[in-house]
Amino acid sequence: MVTEPSDTDYDPEAHAGAVLTIDLDAVVANWRLVAGKLARGACAAVVKADGYGLGADKVAPALAAAGCRHFFVASLEEGVALRRVLPEAALYVLHGPMPGSDTVFAAHRLVPVLNDLGQIEAWQRLAATWPEPLPTVIHLDTGMSRLGLSPGEVDRLAAEPERLAGLSLAYVMSHLVSAEEQDNPLNRQQLGLFNDLRARLPAADASLANGSGVFLGPDFHFDLARPGAVLYGVAPVAGAPNPMRQVVRLQGRIIQVRDVDSPQTVGYGASHSFTGPTTVATVALGYADGYLRHLSNRGSCFVDGVRVPVIGRVSMDLITLDVTKAPADRLFPGALVEVLGDSYTVDDAAADADTIGYEILTSLGPRYHRRYVGG
Amino acid sequence: MVTEPSDTDYDPEAHAGAVLTIDLDAVVANWRLVAGKLARGACAAVVKADGYGLGADKVAPALAAAGCRHFFVASLEEGVALRRVLPEAALYVLHGPMPGSDTVFAAHRLVPVLNDLGQIEAWQRLAATWPEPLPTVIHLDTGMSRLGLSPGEVDRLAAEPERLAGLSLAYVMSHLVSAEEQDNPLNRQQLGLFNDLRARLPAADASLANGSGVFLGPDFHFDLARPGAVLYGVAPVAGAPNPMRQVVRLQGRIIQVRDVDSPQTVGYGASHSFTGPTTVATVALGYADGYLRHLSNRGSCFVDGVRVPVIGRVSMDLITLDVTKAPADRLFPGALVEVLGDSYTVDDAAADADTIGYEILTSLGPRYHRRYVGG
Repeated sequence: MVTEPSDTDYDPEAHAGAVLTIDLDAVVANWRLVAGKLARGACAAVVKADGYGLGADKVAPALAAAGCRHFFVASLEEGVALRRVLPEAALYVLHGPMPGSDTVFAAHRLVPVLNDLGQIEAWQRLAATWPEPLPTVIHLDTGMSRLGLSPGEVDRLAAEPERLAGLSLAYVMSHLVSAEEQDNPLNRQQLGLFNDLRARLPAADASLANGSGVFLGPDFHFDLARPGAVLYGVAPVAGAPNPMRQVVRLQGRIIQVRDVDSPQTVGYGASHSFTGPTTVATVALGYADGYLRHLSNRGSCFVDGVRVPVIGRVSMDLITLDVTKAPADRLFPGALVEVLGDSYTVDDAAADADTIGYEILTSLGPRYHRRYVGG
Repeated sequence: MVTEPSDTDYDPEAHAGAVLTIDLDAVVANWRLVAGKLARGACAAVVKADGYGLGADKVAPALAAAGCRHFFVASLEEGVALRRVLPEAALYVLHGPMPGSDTVFAAHRLVPVLNDLGQIEAWQRLAATWPEPLPTVIHLDTGMSRLGLSPGEVDRLAAEPERLAGLSLAYVMSHLVSAEEQDNPLNRQQLGLFNDLRARLPAADASLANGSGVFLGPDFHFDLARPGAVLYGVAPVAGAPNPMRQVVRLQGRIIQVRDVDSPQTVGYGASHSFTGPTTVATVALGYADGYLRHLSNRGSCFVDGVRVPVIGRVSMDLITLDVTKAPADRLFPGALVEVLGDSYTVDDAAADADTIGYEILTSLGPRYHRRYVGG
């Protein structure tokens, strides 16, 4: 009779449709590169969205071991989860408290980024009852029109200083709109407005630059830089060589190799027609894995250094590649092709999908078998 | 002194950036609608990609309770996970076995869809040693050029019937390329080729139609239909009213409401300029939650039945909405706006993002607080 096997009866990596390798040493090297450029101040790390899709519970401890003391997440839930793995670090929550959640922030020692007078008022109410000082970050909007105090609210806060009584103001911060475009006049405009607005408030340390902002030069550095995407390999400066190390390597597994010829077509909607004898490899990943459907007929993979283009539409669980030019001995069921890595970077995939590297990273899917190296 | 709070100190739903409600009764109703259209044969359910992003461990048991006995997943790992919650159902794995994984299939009673002669050969080798008959599905390629036996391979299989000796052939199947386009001549071409190819093989039950294929009429029904996306609310027929019930309702939480005016801009890259006084709501979800970045300046949400367009670029964790026309008393931090639902369906979002409803579903992110109703 058949016995039910345990889950350890098969090696997930050997059978996974795709293997995602995340190089924690590269994350640390990228953080050190950014930190080393700072004229002054500390270098934080942004690990929201589960460390840009790469696992905040792995990335953040690796950075903490390298000396990073400040971490930013988006939401309360992310902060609570990160507190479990980083009991000592300063953890900042960009969205600030939703109504009614202030106590949870304080109890987990999460520092809220306060984005309007309402959040400041609720936080101050809590601070009045709390046994210890409650550190606070205040976000000033300098052009994003998304979150943060408007200039009018800053004036009101300046005119009514009692609104800040009892709060321990760790930083005032703002966020750059187009920092990756070094010649964009918005950068200097935002810098000027940031300096103007913070001069109206009580003296406090300041934070403005994201990773790209650090590359804009010392005027943008202030007391705390907040790199995010660059830590994970995204280029900081548009149109310039990328100094960051690639962090992710994604390999997809070939299920089938087939020879086809005209007038056949491939995939849903028959969007690609063969014009002659072609070897096609079908690989076990698709848009349900975050391989964006906009890469249909546009993306590329690599086999042994040879580019093999995506042909036809990306399916939910499959892509099809024209592997005619790849070495035949690398093409068999079970073999791996490079989907993301040094030959085809996160930014390359983003350009082909008409998006940004950030979205390629945060879309990396749950079915990939994840391997962490380094750290 | 402060005591560390337990994780139950706050209500995740009350503070979550977005709440995703999944209506299991609607899934069951959609399955019954499709099953009721069948001229003959059984109705399976495709629950790959974690039930199209909605939770296979919830969707599949609800369908099993309604009488569904056949379930399709993509990969071995999905099959192993589904076997835990469905100990009795027939579970089919579309990708077939990767080399070396055949034993795991058999031990978990997973039926592989065999896509080429190599997979058939390996499976037959295992069957010769297995104490019980091993059910098998053979996939014939009729135009997808993705997986499945080519006509040449079918001929070889027909000429060498010993290749099937010892296998219990449950079904021969194929997959339609453009079934949602009812007038596409490919549908009838594929049907013809499917009937031609299966006539060359030993008699077996047949499966051709996905959900859209069922709507092509009785010729396409055969012995097992395999609806997937339609169960989750995607329209089966292009250009026709959608008879399926919406399954997901996604509500995003407002973090901030602000009044802005020209010449201000909003978001990264300053891609939206205000032309006059505007009320903007910032909502706590973004492309890291699968709200695709291609919805920048194109998507819509709804507040109390009023359309509120996405303005500016979708950020990683945030979107900004022009809520000028929405009732002011519905606009406050903590309030929910409708992101997906009856007013703005999965297919509507797909059209605005230049993709298909399937990708909107499978992209639904892990940070949403999930509520299941019905089932």
